[in-house]
Amino acid sequence: MADSKLLPSLDGDPVAVETLLQDVFGIVVDEAIRKGTSASEKVCEWKEPEELKQLLDLELQSQGESQEQILERCRAVIRYSVKTGHPRFFNQLFSGLDPHALAGRIITESLNTSQYTYEIAPVFVLMEEEVLKKLRALVGWSSGDGIFCPGGSISNMYAINLARYQRYPDCKQRGLRALPPLALFTSEECHYSINKGAAFLGLGTDSVRVVKADERGKMIPEDLERQISLAEAEGAVPFLVSATSGTTVLGAFDPLDAIADVCQHHGLWLHVDAAWGGSVLLSQTHRHLLDGIQRADSVAWNPHKLLAAGLQCSALLLQDTSNLLKRCHGSQASYLFQQDKFYDVALDTGDKVVQCGRRVDCLKLWLMWKAQGGQGLEHRIDQAFALARYLVEEIKKREGFELVMEPEFVNVCFWFVPPSLRGKQASPDYSERLSQVAPVLKERMVKEGSMMIGYQPHGSRGNFFRMVVANPTLTCADIDFLLNELERLGQDL
Amino acid sequence: MADSKLLPSLDGDPVAVETLLQDVFGIVVDEAIRKGTSASEKVCEWKEPEELKQLLDLELQSQGESQEQILERCRAVIRYSVKTGHPRFFNQLFSGLDPHALAGRIITESLNTSQYTYEIAPVFVLMEEEVLKKLRALVGWSSGDGIFCPGGSISNMYAINLARYQRYPDCKQRGLRALPPLALFTSEECHYSINKGAAFLGLGTDSVRVVKADERGKMIPEDLERQISLAEAEGAVPFLVSATSGTTVLGAFDPLDAIADVCQHHGLWLHVDAAWGGSVLLSQTHRHLLDGIQRADSVAWNPHKLLAAGLQCSALLLQDTSNLLKRCHGSQASYLFQQDKFYDVALDTGDKVVQCGRRVDCLKLWLMWKAQGGQGLEHRIDQAFALARYLVEEIKKREGFELVMEPEFVNVCFWFVPPSLRGKQASPDYSERLSQVAPVLKERMVKEGSMMIGYQPHGSRGNFFRMVVANPTLTCADIDFLLNELERLGQDL
Repeated sequence: MADSKLLPSLDGDPVAVETLLQDVFGIVVDEAIRKGTSASEKVCEWKEPEELKQLLDLELQSQGESQEQILERCRAVIRYSVKTGHPRFFNQLFSGLDPHALAGRIITESLNTSQYTYEIAPVFVLMEEEVLKKLRALVGWSSGDGIFCPGGSISNMYAINLARYQRYPDCKQRGLRALPPLALFTSEECHYSINKGAAFLGLGTDSVRVVKADERGKMIPEDLERQISLAEAEGAVPFLVSATSGTTVLGAFDPLDAIADVCQHHGLWLHVDAAWGGSVLLSQTHRHLLDGIQRADSVAWNPHKLLAAGLQCSALLLQDTSNLLKRCHGSQASYLFQQDKFYDVALDTGDKVVQCGRRVDCLKLWLMWKAQGGQGLEHRIDQAFALARYLVEEIKKREGFELVMEPEFVNVCFWFVPPSLRGKQASPDYSERLSQVAPVLKERMVKEGSMMIGYQPHGSRGNFFRMVVANPTLTCADIDFLLNELERLGQDL
Repeated sequence: MADSKLLPSLDGDPVAVETLLQDVFGIVVDEAIRKGTSASEKVCEWKEPEELKQLLDLELQSQGESQEQILERCRAVIRYSVKTGHPRFFNQLFSGLDPHALAGRIITESLNTSQYTYEIAPVFVLMEEEVLKKLRALVGWSSGDGIFCPGGSISNMYAINLARYQRYPDCKQRGLRALPPLALFTSEECHYSINKGAAFLGLGTDSVRVVKADERGKMIPEDLERQISLAEAEGAVPFLVSATSGTTVLGAFDPLDAIADVCQHHGLWLHVDAAWGGSVLLSQTHRHLLDGIQRADSVAWNPHKLLAAGLQCSALLLQDTSNLLKRCHGSQASYLFQQDKFYDVALDTGDKVVQCGRRVDCLKLWLMWKAQGGQGLEHRIDQAFALARYLVEEIKKREGFELVMEPEFVNVCFWFVPPSLRGKQASPDYSERLSQVAPVLKERMVKEGSMMIGYQPHGSRGNFFRMVVANPTLTCADIDFLLNELERLGQDL
């Protein structure tokens, strides 16, 4: 062939490219993986924004830099970043570092392709199909459709858009003005993306009818019935119910069977936002929490959360077999989806989505699944439930800790009551003072770098901590650490 | 501290984790980087879908697999994937493999965080701000706002949503039914995402008014005026014009100054879809193609295309300084964007977007820019223009090649006229037969794995090749190879 260069040029020196990447990978292994997951290292190295700007020297210049400078920049980026794989990172609904998933992500980045056609993503088009089939099987569907989306919020938006298109196909061409006013239903505990989606899709947040949840955070089906009647009485057309399997704060699972009954009765699309709780379907012991999910029309499920596949890995699953995704989102761009290709163009998934280029999000999950097996993943889920239970029992034993409620999932919500507030529940400013505790402890733990855990107010309750047991490497020792550390940080309050 | 594990467990063996990742990285360097960018290797190893399914053994099982099996799977995934960094991959608007950008992507994956709060992404919140500032400066703005989106299509949707919100803030709550019928304007050469966006956002594709383009593919401002009058006469309210800098097929640049005049006159939001052409702003020699872009309200620019930053890297830039992004998209989720944090919560960017979790897309671009400098990147752009010019001159010299038109960018569109069709232009079935050539050559090149180049019909023109000069390592030898290879593949036609 015409020339023989082996590597992209780096100042004309191909060996330097390989050396650079080897050096960077060495830094990644040492700093992000070994130290980043070591309990004896900090979970974060807090700096004030202005100081961090100086330390990072962010400005982009005309002149390039030497390889030595670049490697130092790589070290600094890792040093001042939060270690989400650290055993004391409890801050979000994702944590932990699965090595096979990371391997899949590194391969994905090295191949750098887009998922839209079989032509340039043959492996990943077939792999995505297989992974989606497996996820659908766990939902309880032997056929269907689906797609990986850039996050659960967009998966939820897809569901809303598909539901309205199925009922009013005219909407795609003529828009919402050609339709009657629509109403969708979700509980007060739903994720905020339902509201964002309603606004983005042109429905407006007023179209979201909020259904009451019970004291555990579960949608009340009788109130759903009431809200549907109310919306109809106001002249709106109900078209979708979005139930939640695993709410963000309390980890509640809506009663899907009862909600499905309501949807069936009224002919409504049932979407299940299982972004957080979907992975429980892998556990024979706990999957009853999602009983009825097989009756949904669509399910959003993020394996980047409880399965630690890595951001982002968000599947939208559909029971539909009528090519609804492509009919709803397709626009037949002739430069990309030529119909005179030499292979079956049904394999080109690009017209199923509203994106054009689309990242490969299936390999990390597939490779992790191949390595762990369904059994290995199931064990992780069961282990997370067991550790959450351990935490609950420890909280009950210790003075100064109070559960918000008995959890049914791996979100454990609790207050730390500092010494000065113990026994003062009757004091009129107790709630207000208790609410000020979590922000103070959060600041202290972050500035020390010892751990990270989220807090929030919720309804009429003041700030409490939300512990999330998601990192697959957590042990009882990490749970003990969490409680001991809160006691240490809050002993003077 | 309470325990001392150094790495996430891999069958209880932390050393195995590091070994696994080292082994995988070795495979990546050998197979994806060294061979994957070598002209003496195939650009793809074509397999029919059914055969590929068998070779990959995609099914997910209950049992996990050994490390040896997993490594073999990594090799197979790379083997059968298309090498988009290969010097003969001309198929898309992205190609090439920048080692610094890849280093940035690997670090991003190893840190696995979400961009939504300063709390868990301190480095990347500041870095994104700095990178966006630099891109805005190249547009010509000393202030403004912006965000990285999951691809140019979604960047374009954001622009449409922002424009309608700015004009009708009520839309967020009350939806499109509370608004008059809206009209947006774009040329017949625009990217298909404008139509997809109009449908997704509930406006409907009818709201997209198609403006005529001239023979070079540029929007005709006089026709834009006509279409605006027509829409108004039909009772619609014009609110946005989406101009294109670098159209997908022809690589045309709309006349932004003349379009900005029209927008100014009518009070319309000017969006510039510069997903493809935006990177030309780095070139002092060629940036005149985007003259007038500083008059836009919003710009979409994908550094993952011509700058080879890696999928995905798509910036939406705004001239706005009124916090429009947050006002339009925000929903103040109290569990994530607590207002009682111990740092300036204006740093939490999560409420600027309709996503919740959002990937880190800035590091790959930042690290590449630090390494190359603005000058290095400028040189790449200039080099791509120069090579495109070289290709044009070669096409003119060779029998059997015919330019669709003189390009002004790095898209070079041309027909290969096989021996049997030369001199037959007057034949009534000439166009039809010529249109059948590209699909046949495409099949042959893919099955041999020698190169990949896209083709498409366009308007009344039958299938032609669209060569994209984007890979920063391309040389004249690669261009010669392209032409020689088409001659070789098509000599019997």
